[in-house]
Amino acid sequence: MNDISDNPLGKLLVARKAARTFAARYAGRTVLAIGAHPDDIELGIGATVAVLSRAGARVVMAVCSVPGDYELRRSEALNAAAILGCELRILMDGGSRRIEDVKTYQLVGMIDDLVREVQPAAMLTHGCTDFHGDHVAVHHASVPSQRLHSFDFYCYLPTMVRPVPVPFQPRAYIDVSTTIEAKIEAIAAHKSQFGSRGISFDYYREIAHLNGRMCGVEYAEGLDIGRIVFA
Amino acid sequence: MNDISDNPLGKLLVARKAARTFAARYAGRTVLAIGAHPDDIELGIGATVAVLSRAGARVVMAVCSVPGDYELRRSEALNAAAILGCELRILMDGGSRRIEDVKTYQLVGMIDDLVREVQPAAMLTHGCTDFHGDHVAVHHASVPSQRLHSFDFYCYLPTMVRPVPVPFQPRAYIDVSTTIEAKIEAIAAHKSQFGSRGISFDYYREIAHLNGRMCGVEYAEGLDIGRIVFA
Amino acid sequence: MNDISDNPLGKLLVARKAARTFAARYAGRTVLAIGAHPDDIELGIGATVAVLSRAGARVVMAVCSVPGDYELRRSEALNAAAILGCELRILMDGGSRRIEDVKTYQLVGMIDDLVREVQPAAMLTHGCTDFHGDHVAVHHASVPSQRLHSFDFYCYLPTMVRPVPVPFQPRAYIDVSTTIEAKIEAIAAHKSQFGSRGISFDYYREIAHLNGRMCGVEYAEGLDIGRIVFA
Amino acid sequence: MNDISDNPLGKLLVARKAARTFAARYAGRTVLAIGAHPDDIELGIGATVAVLSRAGARVVMAVCSVPGDYELRRSEALNAAAILGCELRILMDGGSRRIEDVKTYQLVGMIDDLVREVQPAAMLTHGCTDFHGDHVAVHHASVPSQRLHSFDFYCYLPTMVRPVPVPFQPRAYIDVSTTIEAKIEAIAAHKSQFGSRGISFDYYREIAHLNGRMCGVEYAEGLDIGRIVFA
Amino acid sequence: MNDISDNPLGKLLVARKAARTFAARYAGRTVLAIGAHPDDIELGIGATVAVLSRAGARVVMAVCSVPGDYELRRSEALNAAAILGCELRILMDGGSRRIEDVKTYQLVGMIDDLVREVQPAAMLTHGCTDFHGDHVAVHHASVPSQRLHSFDFYCYLPTMVRPVPVPFQPRAYIDVSTTIEAKIEAIAAHKSQFGSRGISFDYYREIAHLNGRMCGVEYAEGLDIGRIVFA
Amino acid sequence: MNDISDNPLGKLLVARKAARTFAARYAGRTVLAIGAHPDDIELGIGATVAVLSRAGARVVMAVCSVPGDYELRRSEALNAAAILGCELRILMDGGSRRIEDVKTYQLVGMIDDLVREVQPAAMLTHGCTDFHGDHVAVHHASVPSQRLHSFDFYCYLPTMVRPVPVPFQPRAYIDVSTTIEAKIEAIAAHKSQFGSRGISFDYYREIAHLNGRMCGVEYAEGLDIGRIVFA
Repeated sequence: MNDISDNPLGKLLVARKAARTFAARYAGRTVLAIGAHPDDIELGIGATVAVLSRAGARVVMAVCSVPGDYELRRSEALNAAAILGCELRILMDGGSRRIEDVKTYQLVGMIDDLVREVQPAAMLTHGCTDFHGDHVAVHHASVPSQRLHSFDFYCYLPTMVRPVPVPFQPRAYIDVSTTIEAKIEAIAAHKSQFGSRGISFDYYREIAHLNGRMCGVEYAEGLDIGRIVFA
Repeated sequence: MNDISDNPLGKLLVARKAARTFAARYAGRTVLAIGAHPDDIELGIGATVAVLSRAGARVVMAVCSVPGDYELRRSEALNAAAILGCELRILMDGGSRRIEDVKTYQLVGMIDDLVREVQPAAMLTHGCTDFHGDHVAVHHASVPSQRLHSFDFYCYLPTMVRPVPVPFQPRAYIDVSTTIEAKIEAIAAHKSQFGSRGISFDYYREIAHLNGRMCGVEYAEGLDIGRIVFA
Repeated sequence: MNDISDNPLGKLLVARKAARTFAARYAGRTVLAIGAHPDDIELGIGATVAVLSRAGARVVMAVCSVPGDYELRRSEALNAAAILGCELRILMDGGSRRIEDVKTYQLVGMIDDLVREVQPAAMLTHGCTDFHGDHVAVHHASVPSQRLHSFDFYCYLPTMVRPVPVPFQPRAYIDVSTTIEAKIEAIAAHKSQFGSRGISFDYYREIAHLNGRMCGVEYAEGLDIGRIVFA
Repeated sequence: MNDISDNPLGKLLVARKAARTFAARYAGRTVLAIGAHPDDIELGIGATVAVLSRAGARVVMAVCSVPGDYELRRSEALNAAAILGCELRILMDGGSRRIEDVKTYQLVGMIDDLVREVQPAAMLTHGCTDFHGDHVAVHHASVPSQRLHSFDFYCYLPTMVRPVPVPFQPRAYIDVSTTIEAKIEAIAAHKSQFGSRGISFDYYREIAHLNGRMCGVEYAEGLDIGRIVFA
Repeated sequence: MNDISDNPLGKLLVARKAARTFAARYAGRTVLAIGAHPDDIELGIGATVAVLSRAGARVVMAVCSVPGDYELRRSEALNAAAILGCELRILMDGGSRRIEDVKTYQLVGMIDDLVREVQPAAMLTHGCTDFHGDHVAVHHASVPSQRLHSFDFYCYLPTMVRPVPVPFQPRAYIDVSTTIEAKIEAIAAHKSQFGSRGISFDYYREIAHLNGRMCGVEYAEGLDIGRIVFA
Repeated sequence: MNDISDNPLGKLLVARKAARTFAARYAGRTVLAIGAHPDDIELGIGATVAVLSRAGARVVMAVCSVPGDYELRRSEALNAAAILGCELRILMDGGSRRIEDVKTYQLVGMIDDLVREVQPAAMLTHGCTDFHGDHVAVHHASVPSQRLHSFDFYCYLPTMVRPVPVPFQPRAYIDVSTTIEAKIEAIAAHKSQFGSRGISFDYYREIAHLNGRMCGVEYAEGLDIGRIVFA
């Protein structure tokens, strides 16, 4: 039996489908993922950044601050980033820091600097409906960087360890069927957060499964969209 | 002096930029544009459908009803569709009809049928903040067709002949610098609507120019996003 | 080992917890569940109405219309109602009818009449963010009945056979761990809808499981709240 | 003439009505009321906490900070709490403090600690549409405590001394016909705030009267609902 | 003792205050008030139209339909209009009619015709959050008339006989201290609606009193604002 | 040929139109414009304040802080204020300061003090959808001053140098056809901000032109409305 890609029509269909993926849009370009603390990016879009890095995108995971146990958590974050094939940056580096240790305009400045440096084709950051004040602060500090150049701007769902009801309705669905296990592995790399609390990772898999149902794949991650520039 | 596309790096840059266009996403696929009446699609997204058709997408312009002067307005709509390189369909065809001449479920059925037939990769339809009741009705009749398969779903700005303030905030920006004049030409093809009323087309050009400023191109059209499926 | 309810403190704890249930609030009273078509109530709040009926509440399931196959679908609805321990009413009875076959004020009148008859302590109806026009119409026809007397007013999530993304954020969580299987059974009783389409019921179980995580139980159904009267 | 509760049916009716009260839901349990400053809880939900305490609930009134005149205002707050039958806690105690004297995460920590200590069945706190920055800050610091366990979460109307239009639409109505005067008395206990300014308390009585009209009682207080857990 | 208006400064202050009134803005011009049925305008903005007519504005009260008892209710509406000093128009005249007896585009046409005839400086119509389907339909049929010329567009609160909680937040406050009793009298003129139901008019007075508190007068009516044209 | 104002009817028409202007409402009174930094007021409502000052209103432009180059930027702001005929105040004066250098309650206090001093008939301030954290902070610090007395409260569009998409829908349109050039001139007076960056002022003219189309004049500025007091 021939594989679908062995004949011209099959190749066309695969090509058409390929054109529709997140990977096709960002391969060969840079995507900037921003999280308030270590593990936020993994919880929110771990499988999406893995899809991108595997497809040849450069993905920079920017963690704004490490609120405690700096060396340990930095090491866990490095492991998680390695699992996902991404680069790690810590914006407030060199030691344990709180988001609130800097003024808003300073946080804006850090994100602006990173945008100027890596010239992202897309930014993935916290959303504004999150219940964690630090996450909301990072969202608001990310938004103004859109004035610097016209990258795509997405927000991911409120991230949390213990489920809390918070409104979030995705507008973009990313097929992550091939990377959902990498996401779980990356979350698990944050042993100080998840090792001893007996928290099950099934929650994250269940959300991805429901998002998958929304677009006809096994697992998906959902993003809200601030802007997409088709230019 | 060499053109940017004459050397490998230049080719790469052009390719990367190309991957970002609306054309790249939908070339070789079908896009379904829906409007309540003749001229709505032209006013709302005339330049976008021209970009798509020129890039090799099949674009079906589905007009729900012709409220009067059936033959004349159908002829104008055919001319406009030809200018934009698109196919025209009239859902309630064969004579002058009002949207309200059918029940909602019948309109849903007509749109469902068309979706099943053309299997669109994207639908572009009216938004829900429009002030014209027919436009809102078409929006609500378009939404449920998303259950049939997982195409992208966009809404365009409230369309009108005389400016009225209505909220609409785009999330997607489409570079239409190369097709803005085709849009104006297609609108002008609706002579019965615009010929004698002394209405200037500058309004539509001005909106596209402001949208262009939002994403660094000369002219852009803006769309709200219901869902984009990256799968 | 003693059961927790065998000693005074245990009895108190159980009593306190009991005071918190949906059953405690509505036992001995009437709850009116409203759905546009057969199977909507089952899909949206099948497990909640089962919890209520098992606790001694009278639950009236009011189906507004049967759009086709009247006898068959009525029979299926009766079976489902029996599984859930509820009474069935069909508002537009006697044959296949569409919601749009009556004017809005007539639908309002039918719901008003039922409210006057059964004097509900709570109404559970469709929400306003549903993508199905009939469901939204039923929501809007239910709202004004609140003027008749001061019952609690809840809305359930958009009901659908094939998953479509629609915003819905619950405010009330009902523990349905003991009745989730009855819900699935009641949905399955609508054989004409689910028998031959190869649709899995896991979707509904998954949603209930995620809602359960939000409030620390195995399965929960989520409701939006219009008003609750503590008087 | 027999009292309604003297015969079996009368007893049942009274019991049914009783099951519907705020008191029935929280009697024998702990309710945590949170206010930014002394008098906020009294202004927002003074009559509701009195209903709860009279019914046997433990009500803890947690005042986040006293912005000045610490001893005087603490004394007034103690008097008001006594009138309402509630316990008083001052989170930033020991002297005059501003909400902004601590970081957000510190305020979150204080509220978290109190939740862990008193294990509330419900929290009543400021809403997010309030015009006072401190009230909004307290709201946002209260929300994350929901992750600790699954208590009910309500928000009360924007509190103010001089009327300012601010949007607030209640979802829960609490009959406070028996405690409205206790509320007025508790507000009046804050003499330093209301004694010399010639402010009439009628405003608060009028709001309660209008809320009462909404649910068929003489006086009611209205609450927005974040979540109610029926489990 | 001199009256404030007896000296130059006093005259200036009165003049300045006068410039701020609704009467000053519309005196000598036409204001179009639209209501779905007889009594809606009286309930919603009876005191405001009286303020306008007393100041020399022409106020046209346009009632869309009389759902029953045509002659009686028309007579009552004429009496009420006379009390308020306004002209009455019945859009669907000549007999009892339901809003739903005409198509939306026909209702739009009737309102458009009236706008073209009376050339209003302002339109006051139902708001979109009303719970009555007819009121919402009238709102949506009023909105598009804004394209005809640039009058001010206001919406009034949901009108009802029995209080039901519906969100409505005014943006404009009209001092009606001098006409509140005329409003009550005009409502009372609808004897068929209010005569035998034992409904108290205090509800409307209480709302006006609370709105008055919001802007420092005894009684006020509140309006939402679609647009105000300062040109 | 006679000028329209040369005969009684003409005079009446001009008078009627005059009554409708922003100038008519605020002439002889004080309007308080608030901006986070120098140039914000000019960008947002430069043409509106010029209209007011030319009509005899006192307009106080209150700049909250100068983030750097204090003397230079203060001098530019003075020039701009002179061009617009307004008074300049710098709230955090005496040197370069950041909004975040003070607590929120301190900023509220500064704005309260100014309101008490100048007793404005209207306040024009930043809106809450702005993407700049300082602008949003100034908005929230302006809102509570409404409790001091019942002035009109307007918000202007998000101000920016490089276009970024942000939602903003005006409710009030001010004809600024006679002062649009003064606005551009006042913006240009901020040479340190606009001199060397090669930024075109056409963007601001284009927005005003589109707003003008919405109300039938050549150029208009759009404002959101918090409250207007017609009393």
